[in-house]
Amino acid sequence: MSPKITTELLKQLRQVMKNPKYVQEPIQAYIVPSGDAHQSEYIAPCDCRRAFISGFDGSAGTAIVTEQHAAMWTDGRYFLQAAHQMDNNWTLMKMGLKDTPTQEDWLVNVLPECSKVGVDPFIIPADQWKRMSKALRSAGHDLVPVKENLIDTIWTDCPQRPCKPLIVLDLSYTGVSWRDKITALRSKMAERKVMWFVVTALDEVAWLFNLRGSDVEYNPVFFAYAVIGMNTIRLFIDGDRMMDPAVREHLQLDSTLEPEFKIQVMPYGSILSELQAVGAGLSPKEKVWLSDKASYALTEAIPKAYRYLTPYTPICIAKAVKNASETEGMRRAHIKDAVALCELFNWLEKEVPKGTVTEIIAADKAEEFRSQQKDFVELSFATISSTGPNGAIIHYKPVPETNRTLSVNEIYLLDSGAQYKDGTTDVTRTMHFGTPSAYEKECFTYVLKGHIAVSAAIFPNGTKGHLLDSFARSALWDCGLDYLHGTGHGVGSFLNVHEGPCGISYKTFADEPLEAGMIVSDEPGYYEDGSFGIRIENVVLVIPAETKYNFKNRGSLTFEPLTLVPIQTKMIDVNLLTQKECNWVNDYHQKCREVVGAELERQGRHEALRWLIRETEPLVRVQ
Amino acid sequence: MSPKITTELLKQLRQVMKNPKYVQEPIQAYIVPSGDAHQSEYIAPCDCRRAFISGFDGSAGTAIVTEQHAAMWTDGRYFLQAAHQMDNNWTLMKMGLKDTPTQEDWLVNVLPECSKVGVDPFIIPADQWKRMSKALRSAGHDLVPVKENLIDTIWTDCPQRPCKPLIVLDLSYTGVSWRDKITALRSKMAERKVMWFVVTALDEVAWLFNLRGSDVEYNPVFFAYAVIGMNTIRLFIDGDRMMDPAVREHLQLDSTLEPEFKIQVMPYGSILSELQAVGAGLSPKEKVWLSDKASYALTEAIPKAYRYLTPYTPICIAKAVKNASETEGMRRAHIKDAVALCELFNWLEKEVPKGTVTEIIAADKAEEFRSQQKDFVELSFATISSTGPNGAIIHYKPVPETNRTLSVNEIYLLDSGAQYKDGTTDVTRTMHFGTPSAYEKECFTYVLKGHIAVSAAIFPNGTKGHLLDSFARSALWDCGLDYLHGTGHGVGSFLNVHEGPCGISYKTFADEPLEAGMIVSDEPGYYEDGSFGIRIENVVLVIPAETKYNFKNRGSLTFEPLTLVPIQTKMIDVNLLTQKECNWVNDYHQKCREVVGAELERQGRHEALRWLIRETEPLVRVQ
Repeated sequence: MSPKITTELLKQLRQVMKNPKYVQEPIQAYIVPSGDAHQSEYIAPCDCRRAFISGFDGSAGTAIVTEQHAAMWTDGRYFLQAAHQMDNNWTLMKMGLKDTPTQEDWLVNVLPECSKVGVDPFIIPADQWKRMSKALRSAGHDLVPVKENLIDTIWTDCPQRPCKPLIVLDLSYTGVSWRDKITALRSKMAERKVMWFVVTALDEVAWLFNLRGSDVEYNPVFFAYAVIGMNTIRLFIDGDRMMDPAVREHLQLDSTLEPEFKIQVMPYGSILSELQAVGAGLSPKEKVWLSDKASYALTEAIPKAYRYLTPYTPICIAKAVKNASETEGMRRAHIKDAVALCELFNWLEKEVPKGTVTEIIAADKAEEFRSQQKDFVELSFATISSTGPNGAIIHYKPVPETNRTLSVNEIYLLDSGAQYKDGTTDVTRTMHFGTPSAYEKECFTYVLKGHIAVSAAIFPNGTKGHLLDSFARSALWDCGLDYLHGTGHGVGSFLNVHEGPCGISYKTFADEPLEAGMIVSDEPGYYEDGSFGIRIENVVLVIPAETKYNFKNRGSLTFEPLTLVPIQTKMIDVNLLTQKECNWVNDYHQKCREVVGAELERQGRHEALRWLIRETEPLVRVQ
Repeated sequence: MSPKITTELLKQLRQVMKNPKYVQEPIQAYIVPSGDAHQSEYIAPCDCRRAFISGFDGSAGTAIVTEQHAAMWTDGRYFLQAAHQMDNNWTLMKMGLKDTPTQEDWLVNVLPECSKVGVDPFIIPADQWKRMSKALRSAGHDLVPVKENLIDTIWTDCPQRPCKPLIVLDLSYTGVSWRDKITALRSKMAERKVMWFVVTALDEVAWLFNLRGSDVEYNPVFFAYAVIGMNTIRLFIDGDRMMDPAVREHLQLDSTLEPEFKIQVMPYGSILSELQAVGAGLSPKEKVWLSDKASYALTEAIPKAYRYLTPYTPICIAKAVKNASETEGMRRAHIKDAVALCELFNWLEKEVPKGTVTEIIAADKAEEFRSQQKDFVELSFATISSTGPNGAIIHYKPVPETNRTLSVNEIYLLDSGAQYKDGTTDVTRTMHFGTPSAYEKECFTYVLKGHIAVSAAIFPNGTKGHLLDSFARSALWDCGLDYLHGTGHGVGSFLNVHEGPCGISYKTFADEPLEAGMIVSDEPGYYEDGSFGIRIENVVLVIPAETKYNFKNRGSLTFEPLTLVPIQTKMIDVNLLTQKECNWVNDYHQKCREVVGAELERQGRHEALRWLIRETEPLVRVQ
């Protein structure tokens, strides 16, 4: 991977930062956040402005360019990747390390007095604007909205915003109709005494209307906003997508409906003016509910006194708790996904020793096997197929320049998943196709112990996921090891592979409590720069736990793994496991064998079935 | 315990809430926080205003009185106690439970439109003022400072503010002179570019000047403020305490000193006017550093643009990391404390079966044994001596009305500690003087497993204590049990038994990372209302840990127990322990036997020594 040469681009950007065509007064710094106007994590090519200006294309990062400096903040997953992709014009700011300044502190330190810092008000979330603006103001600087995106002005070959056909998701997948979802939302609005709710996140729009799209790779969403009133529904969406008879039928656009369920379709670009009109017409006490992560531009459209901002929207919270149809769909999707991976690992086992399988070939093969499964739509994220030292690049994606050949001498890490119409998968397995060293097995086993500690944890109702994070690290900590990323994220149901409001991470505190029906990943790891990476990831469902006692009648929860792919026993140092941990592995493998075995049998995949049976042989612990 | 009858008092308070002598306009609600003008947790009798108005005298709680309602917010430690001590005029607000409203939400719900809510600006911390004020304003109400404390106006027999002699602590105890502490503070000030630092917490004043007092029971502090400039030191303190030759000598008040170490002594009551004068005389860029928990009154004395507020002051952080002299002092104090407890438990074992030992007698006996030890000053908090159902009242203190006789049929919980000139102790042991039931042993063993999980935890440098909290609960959670309090708090060195900025609790997120030299408690528990309480508490020192590997060269930490009192093996169900846990107990007891045994021997306490030896017999686990 050679770095992108950005000298000329930065020169151009610094010019437009002073160009009166775009800025009222010259700005001394310009912030390029990661997201789009919907604060999406995964973004369309036309929104990859930070990658365009810097070369760094990981999923998280914020660039700030001043007259003298260009700096990039990103987290532990991307330290290596960012360092590889950016040229010498850029300074890498490693978030989470003690000596790394915050963006605000850094700006205050490098800016000349009374500077103006610009940002696109549609891209920066309101809460970030507020924090940044306050910090800058207290140091004598100003954060200013720059209407025209300055990257777009220098991005001559910027791709078009996608506008692809929609998928209608019927009740057998969603469990709840969009009308019932609107009704539930309105009752939450009534509870909080708000009259309007603005849906800004793409996955929330998709979930609410039981529609899916493909405007953003890996995330089955489409560019749209919605504004829900107590008696009105406005959907802001472009293109001829609303001409599709199936969509019209699904949304009952041509039916005579109670007026409160009549959807008004409006152009995507009219959201700001429409919202400003809503804002201008509010009577006292009429509040408008927005996510505090909605863009500064949309938030400002509502006068401050009328805003009701919350970190998590009622849609975000409702979406996180999967209903029976969604849970069943997720189970089905994970069984199909396991079938594909059994095929893949069986194939790799035969092919790797020949020395012809590269990381890219392996990733493509994984996609090929997945695409053979029913209701397969696309991958749920860029496959991380990494061997040897590439495995230590936490969110690595193989490209021709880095593509490495799998061998019997190196650890292979595959983190991959897919979108099926019935569910979203995300699984990581770490394999060795030769003989792992004692040290590799030792590290793998610590990671496994952490994985089990979370997966088997029993905890009271009302517990927030971040309280479980240390369980995943304890075995690693005991010997001085650790990993620099969180342990788990929420997973959507045929939606974004990363979703809020719950997760398992030492980094969050404001996560919503876990409750039965939520789905998160459990993915501790261990990475040794320049050598190897290990990660073991299952998607797990929060379920009620049976306990001997029941303190204060609170009830308890635990996890049920939805992912059913064998964990390579060759990599396990059984003597480092407790009997309980050993039993967990054996029970898990027994379930993989039964459930996935039946499906492999049904699909006539006999060789993969034999592989599965061999890989799920019980561990025996020497006492 | 019968509740305090508050009908008349509330009537009087509601009258002064409308009395133009005290309030410009009538106020519709009055907030009575727990603390004093220094935001102390333990307060002098003259500051116990919340207890006076409500009857509830636990260490934490906030009362709010409106024209119609009187409500008390407190946490899980005090639910039972508060319910017992308050009459029907009061509504108990159980903090931490899902359905309990915040004070702000409750106020907004019960207040008539455009209400004024009053509070003493010296008592409310600035950060709480800000939060409360904002929430009230957004609902159309106003938070207003009421200069005269309204409780004081109706408290006819309010005791005088204490003004007791000071204790000079010499270098052998403190390790660092006050001049060196001032120098270190000034270098922290220079780093942050502030010109003034205002010391508002009583323990910070005491620590900075290496002085102790006895103005507040259990906390060896004295009423004072200090304002440290880059070249000046002002100490605000009343009475003839500065006449004491030892104090004058210690503070070098009569020596010819470099001017920057010359202490100006001023009356305690002049802090506000002096600080206002400082505030008025600031040149641009001259910042004043205050804790964000300093009172609203003092914070307002500094114009907003000149304030530098942090959650933890540099003194708070420096004070938390004990130096070698302090650590050695803490070790000595804990050995003496263990001697006293060995004597006590040996005595109880003989006396309890006679049926003559009450909770109060046992507490007094504990104090008697402690007071025999060298450098004993006073207790470090009110002894919690509780048997049977009283043990479930987490911060119970025996009083004649509740005083219960210890018996061979009930669990006895003793949470107690002392101030010695060389250190502060805080230890809880749960004992049975007959035969515990299988269920009692089971619960005790889960608590012990939690205690060990924290005490033996190894974690990376930079880890915050709250990340360890779940370790203490895991064994309880596994069978559906839990406890409604944090796991540990910082402990002062001959100072407050509760101190920041570190601790081990699911409730905090903004705690400072643990570092070697910090001292915290490790005290999981289990409480069954109406039956019994179990808690096992040691004070532990953060020390570097040796680990097999050293990820990113970060280094690891663990804990060394300073408390060396046997954990009753009779209460342990050995079969519920892992071999590792069993070894921990045996190693711990071995150390108790060696270290405390030698001191018992030296003090000629042979009977207690025999008790210690018997109580520290190794556990044997049946495989």
